[in-house]
Amino acid sequence: MQNDAPSRALAVERDAQSGITVPVTEITLADSPDGSANAPVRVYRTEGPGGDPTRGIPALREAWIAERGDTEEYDGRDRTLADDGRGAARRGAASAEWQGARRRPRRSATGKPVTQMAYARRGEITPEMRFVAVREGVDVELVRSEVAAGRAIIPNNVNHPESEPMIIGRAFTVKVNANIGNSAVHSSIAEEVEKLQWATRWGADTVMDLSTGDDIHTTREWLLRNAPVPIGTVPIYQALEKVDGDASRMSWEVYRDTIIEQCEQGVDYMTVHAGVLLRYVPLTANRVTGIVSRGGSIMAGWCLAHHQENFLYTRFDELCEIFAAYDVAFSLGDGLRPGSIADANDAAQFAELDTLAELTKRAWEHDVQVMVEGPGHIPLHLVRENVERQQELCDGAPFYTLGPLVTDIAPGYDHITSAIGATEIARYGTAMLCYVTPKEHLGLPNRDDVRTGVVTYKIAAHAADVAKGHPGATARDDALSKARFEFRWRDQFNLSLDPELAESYHDETLPAEAAKTAHFCSMCGPKFCSMRISQDIRDEFGDAAAQERVVAASQQQVEAGMAEKAAEFRAAGGEVYLPTPTVPAR
Amino acid sequence: MQNDAPSRALAVERDAQSGITVPVTEITLADSPDGSANAPVRVYRTEGPGGDPTRGIPALREAWIAERGDTEEYDGRDRTLADDGRGAARRGAASAEWQGARRRPRRSATGKPVTQMAYARRGEITPEMRFVAVREGVDVELVRSEVAAGRAIIPNNVNHPESEPMIIGRAFTVKVNANIGNSAVHSSIAEEVEKLQWATRWGADTVMDLSTGDDIHTTREWLLRNAPVPIGTVPIYQALEKVDGDASRMSWEVYRDTIIEQCEQGVDYMTVHAGVLLRYVPLTANRVTGIVSRGGSIMAGWCLAHHQENFLYTRFDELCEIFAAYDVAFSLGDGLRPGSIADANDAAQFAELDTLAELTKRAWEHDVQVMVEGPGHIPLHLVRENVERQQELCDGAPFYTLGPLVTDIAPGYDHITSAIGATEIARYGTAMLCYVTPKEHLGLPNRDDVRTGVVTYKIAAHAADVAKGHPGATARDDALSKARFEFRWRDQFNLSLDPELAESYHDETLPAEAAKTAHFCSMCGPKFCSMRISQDIRDEFGDAAAQERVVAASQQQVEAGMAEKAAEFRAAGGEVYLPTPTVPAR
Repeated sequence: MQNDAPSRALAVERDAQSGITVPVTEITLADSPDGSANAPVRVYRTEGPGGDPTRGIPALREAWIAERGDTEEYDGRDRTLADDGRGAARRGAASAEWQGARRRPRRSATGKPVTQMAYARRGEITPEMRFVAVREGVDVELVRSEVAAGRAIIPNNVNHPESEPMIIGRAFTVKVNANIGNSAVHSSIAEEVEKLQWATRWGADTVMDLSTGDDIHTTREWLLRNAPVPIGTVPIYQALEKVDGDASRMSWEVYRDTIIEQCEQGVDYMTVHAGVLLRYVPLTANRVTGIVSRGGSIMAGWCLAHHQENFLYTRFDELCEIFAAYDVAFSLGDGLRPGSIADANDAAQFAELDTLAELTKRAWEHDVQVMVEGPGHIPLHLVRENVERQQELCDGAPFYTLGPLVTDIAPGYDHITSAIGATEIARYGTAMLCYVTPKEHLGLPNRDDVRTGVVTYKIAAHAADVAKGHPGATARDDALSKARFEFRWRDQFNLSLDPELAESYHDETLPAEAAKTAHFCSMCGPKFCSMRISQDIRDEFGDAAAQERVVAASQQQVEAGMAEKAAEFRAAGGEVYLPTPTVPAR
Repeated sequence: MQNDAPSRALAVERDAQSGITVPVTEITLADSPDGSANAPVRVYRTEGPGGDPTRGIPALREAWIAERGDTEEYDGRDRTLADDGRGAARRGAASAEWQGARRRPRRSATGKPVTQMAYARRGEITPEMRFVAVREGVDVELVRSEVAAGRAIIPNNVNHPESEPMIIGRAFTVKVNANIGNSAVHSSIAEEVEKLQWATRWGADTVMDLSTGDDIHTTREWLLRNAPVPIGTVPIYQALEKVDGDASRMSWEVYRDTIIEQCEQGVDYMTVHAGVLLRYVPLTANRVTGIVSRGGSIMAGWCLAHHQENFLYTRFDELCEIFAAYDVAFSLGDGLRPGSIADANDAAQFAELDTLAELTKRAWEHDVQVMVEGPGHIPLHLVRENVERQQELCDGAPFYTLGPLVTDIAPGYDHITSAIGATEIARYGTAMLCYVTPKEHLGLPNRDDVRTGVVTYKIAAHAADVAKGHPGATARDDALSKARFEFRWRDQFNLSLDPELAESYHDETLPAEAAKTAHFCSMCGPKFCSMRISQDIRDEFGDAAAQERVVAASQQQVEAGMAEKAAEFRAAGGEVYLPTPTVPAR
């Protein structure tokens, strides 16, 4: 019986032991032309957000966190006008205050770490680990042991119970992060929430809010309450707003205040540029593009203005203690990453990596989860060294890279220049890729750029999973290719990373619904289709006996033909002859 | 003195010995903020087409060809209605006949090959070789010796004097081909000419006319008379039209007639699926996607219908003799290339490659230039083997690959999935990349798709040149990165592969002309720019003495800080403490 209703819908998988359910997308396929059924394909899915953004999404993890009994609610830090930056301070009011439910913040009740790493090291299997194991289709013990070893992280602030647990580590599927956030030039909370929703819809595994403009605190609150994925930030951006943009006025106190503010809101991981040491800064002086990391340049500027060592480095253990109390993960920032292929793999970059490796191990002493950020701009032949060196120095801590871009000459296409480098670096072990949108170097991404960036990076991540031989990675490719070969257009669309775009492109030349079951496509038209001819071949000559007959006939003819041809050539005295340009009778 | 008029304009370079001039694009740069001048950057350029497409472009090579004295004009084959396909035959008239000047066709006057390979092997330096040497910035002897060895080709039919000579070979910059052409579903000569112009404008090095619909002969005439780049075709497509789309009625006579028709028009290289042997066809029967090459499936269908060996293989020496008389190059088609990553590097694909290697050497015996086509769909970890095997088996004959796509799950984004594979395969020696547009697998590319495809593949080709360490390849990257660091926006745009797109993206957030000289961008806004902070660092701390002071200060502080911290931690009994969430006074 023909299955005439291919579909793409939410389904759930269940952890047998705990009963925890995990959303997946189930793609139901039409039958093959010969009547045989095609098994549905299930793919990784982040369920939320879907509803009214003013209310936020359900707090999936709330009970899990409470049941552990190791955290307590407390009266958090008071929100100040300065938290929303200079604009709010000038206006005397923050705009568009979060309207949904508010929770009192939680933190460790005991002074002990409440991190997934701490639990994993004690041999405890958390609901978060079970959720992740179902999502990844692996044994939960693999999840626990990789987290315990520091080779994977599950970024899950206790104050972000809305998040659907996910894991970042080289033993698992490669993940994609999408950067959003406003700037001083353009700012709108609604737009940022919409970008979060689009990023998640197209498959972003985490989202970073890199806002540097107005309403920083409030924008982040809206994002967190609507985020089913871990949210990352670069706290120095907000801290800089609190000192009116003057890096020299930055202090540990202001930074620490900002960190705690964000821990209480529920930020899951934070980029900390603790590896930008004073003595590394001069190593960048003769670069083509100096320091291009915003956080890196702020800290370098601070170090030089004060002639003091980077306080993120000197206070690193205090940071660890704070992070351990909320289960915030470090994303150790590469403040000295190259901003051009000319500066790739240079002394400044690798000096900082040595320090990031040292800090990774210090964080682990506090049971704090860590990933390490990587470049940037790297020509293709130097990409592999980056991940192999990081994995070696950092004892396998997850690597999280921005691209890298493999050439500098294509602004407007840097999602592509960087996807090339991203696939290469992920193939050799990078655990999460930070997307780059077409607007990189030129402007802030809009909603469409977010979609293009996410899908482009899903390609890179998936291509790397395939190249790594990740179990089951090719199932979706194979299902789509089979559908393509059998002209099951609807199945092709549904199996695509971007079904809507694929269908709209198809419809530009063949819009009718009938064309979606037609045995041809607009490339070749109805009478001239290689896939159709090929299918005919298979139908006629697919059995072994037919194959043998064909091979025997071929060999005889080739031998005969060669002999004849050679005789002809010899008869002609070995000379080539000029063809007569006559037209055969038709 | 500030250069306030950065520009992007046509310039010429001259071969000192012959006086031959070669067009280049000269990008004049603004001065740096410190007043120092930035040398102009010259980049590879194809000059035409620019003018009225009904008149065609100048015949640059006409005198060179005539002066060699080894070709003669003759009364060519008469054009028949069937040459324009079934539609024209039905109408009883071909539409939109070519209106510009017509030349009588030329061919070898002596029966000897008139190919660049023949000249090169005799030690002759042709004007075409000189032109190419200037374009590539190499010694002309390198050009001659690579062509003589078969490791490079200069596709230049004597009947296409409009073409600006270019070279395809691994010792030279990686080239990009753009496919255009109509189909039975959609057809317009004007649109195809426009696609040719756009492809060339954005940097396509050759263009293939893959028309399979109406007006095949006439469309090709318009394209050739307007093409400053070599034009390639797949003659079997037209031959199939002449037998009303019925592959079983195909014959050597019809095919040969089509070849001569196209030789006389000026086609520079032709894809010939001579490696699809009868005995290889059964090897595809159990593939996920069978045979996906249109030419390959036609020949496989013919072989099986007749139970005879592929006539392109048995008649290969006759083909060589025809090609030698016009200097048409073979593009040995990979009719059994994989159409899905599941079928990559399989027995059918590699069996055909063995035969293509055999045919390469047979063509060389006739002094006919050859390149070899490659896949297709290949997962990233299997890409490198393809080019290394081809280079080994084919004694370095240029490899010309379609992508390859590294995953099958992203229809609508296959310019990207394939650019990833293309960069990898070019890095290891592929000489020319056939672009893939966003419409691949879904429909015919329009003008915008051609632009996107070409620019995407210029990225892949250039990134591979950089990765290969091709001399001078990074000059444009470095100039653009320096311009970026110095906020020379106009220079950034002009140095880009697609200046218009880069500028339009920039203008979406900061449209004013003033913003193009502003020392910030819309990503961070005026007060928060890492590039600006970094430049300040360089200005203040760029000298060696300052660097030394910084390093010394850093080391002292780190040592002191570490000692203090360690003491603190010991005093606290090695316990972590819980941070108090108070806000510092502000």
